[in-house]
Amino acid sequence: METLSENRSFGGTQGVYKHMSMATGTNMTFGLFLPAEAADGPVPLLWFLSGLTCTHENAMTKAGAQAWAADHGIGLCFPDTSPRGEGVPNDDAYDLGQGAGFYIDATRVPWSEHFKMWTYIAEELPHLLGANFALDMDRQSITGHSMGGHGALTMAMALKGRFKSVSAFAPICNPTQSDWGRKQFAAYWGDEANWGPHDATLLMQGGGFDGPMLVDTGTEDQFWDLLGTEAFAAAFTARKQEGQLRLQKGYDHSYFFISSFMEDHIAFHADALWH
Amino acid sequence: METLSENRSFGGTQGVYKHMSMATGTNMTFGLFLPAEAADGPVPLLWFLSGLTCTHENAMTKAGAQAWAADHGIGLCFPDTSPRGEGVPNDDAYDLGQGAGFYIDATRVPWSEHFKMWTYIAEELPHLLGANFALDMDRQSITGHSMGGHGALTMAMALKGRFKSVSAFAPICNPTQSDWGRKQFAAYWGDEANWGPHDATLLMQGGGFDGPMLVDTGTEDQFWDLLGTEAFAAAFTARKQEGQLRLQKGYDHSYFFISSFMEDHIAFHADALWH
Repeated sequence: METLSENRSFGGTQGVYKHMSMATGTNMTFGLFLPAEAADGPVPLLWFLSGLTCTHENAMTKAGAQAWAADHGIGLCFPDTSPRGEGVPNDDAYDLGQGAGFYIDATRVPWSEHFKMWTYIAEELPHLLGANFALDMDRQSITGHSMGGHGALTMAMALKGRFKSVSAFAPICNPTQSDWGRKQFAAYWGDEANWGPHDATLLMQGGGFDGPMLVDTGTEDQFWDLLGTEAFAAAFTARKQEGQLRLQKGYDHSYFFISSFMEDHIAFHADALWH
Repeated sequence: METLSENRSFGGTQGVYKHMSMATGTNMTFGLFLPAEAADGPVPLLWFLSGLTCTHENAMTKAGAQAWAADHGIGLCFPDTSPRGEGVPNDDAYDLGQGAGFYIDATRVPWSEHFKMWTYIAEELPHLLGANFALDMDRQSITGHSMGGHGALTMAMALKGRFKSVSAFAPICNPTQSDWGRKQFAAYWGDEANWGPHDATLLMQGGGFDGPMLVDTGTEDQFWDLLGTEAFAAAFTARKQEGQLRLQKGYDHSYFFISSFMEDHIAFHADALWH
């Protein structure tokens, strides 16, 4: 593992690291914020999974998360959203290929060789973090934005017992019924029979999350029709899921929306991680 | 004036606007955050002047300022750092030409036609803001980073009575003795006799600022030798300037440094603007 940069931030350290991934067969880059408390021993970890077109960097520089993570003594991991590089397949569309891994393991050529983001985030990167940083991997929570909200919700529900809490900002939450989902699942997997375990609405219908959940979506989200919020809300309510779905008046899909509610989300996760 | 974007942010609005500037003879773009209170009447204004290579966008997306401006009911203006465009002269170096206006009015060809950033920030943009937005232009304060810290300090000291308070993050504060200053002043002006009114250390020796001043610089700033912090500290102390110079252990020149202390800076300005 190679250190690309380390900057002092809110009394802790914002690092960027690169490593060779067995899962994707490429170099992968991630950001990791460690609060001051990490100097004295392992701290809890909150994952932030990013949306379409993002790298490890967008949320790390624009979400304003470090301030609140420092307040609560929590680490933050910002993974990349796909494998990248010259040998990695891509597509001219912004929503397929590099920058659009969708947090799934592709099985179809040409994507299947490198696009293994589920295995990377669910298995490989946690092991790497636990082995190399002062992180208490028994205390993890997860959040994300848009495609990353989809990743956070599906991982939290599928990996039972892994996460103490889950939240999302404007998540894609019914991808099997959306052009943000059907297109990518068809390209990466093909067979529709396998899609269910990667749709948050279907996972909620199938059992939900055993812990608290917080979802914020803006009423002026320009991608509202692609998110599937209504279907997810129906499943959330029917399941009597512990948690909150909030519609934030006037907010859109941008990082201005995310940063506005980051304090709430990190306080919500801190409550689950520390108690 | 044209609205390029408006996003809901912390209960207020983060806008980006473009207008034809008389001062620079080009289109100029700026960001303006208005807190929720602006819907009920004019609010105080804090200027954030950015550093080398930045546009209006860097601080607007990475400094984390909106959270605290919203808390204190203060507007934020993020101007660009130079004129831009095809007809505007430039230089291959990152620290001359476009992105490097240095908040001065150039008098030498080829810069003199468009590089009038002093007049733009000190005269034209305030009039535009006061005429078009719910801002109380009798209550202004100013801050900035690096080259923008130079701009903030020099404008606050030269425009007597304009600003209630001034602060800076890692400012260039003795440019007449630095390669960040001598190079640009020579290119834009030539005659060294005119440089004094644009050097914060010389302005401090000549009278200082009539109000509170806050300056933060990191002990690990990678550009320490170019900033002139020691000379400025000597002048600050000799003048018995009201305020604080703080050296922040372990911090560098990045936005991770700026965002870490933004809460302090905005609280400092709010105290001067509201009382």
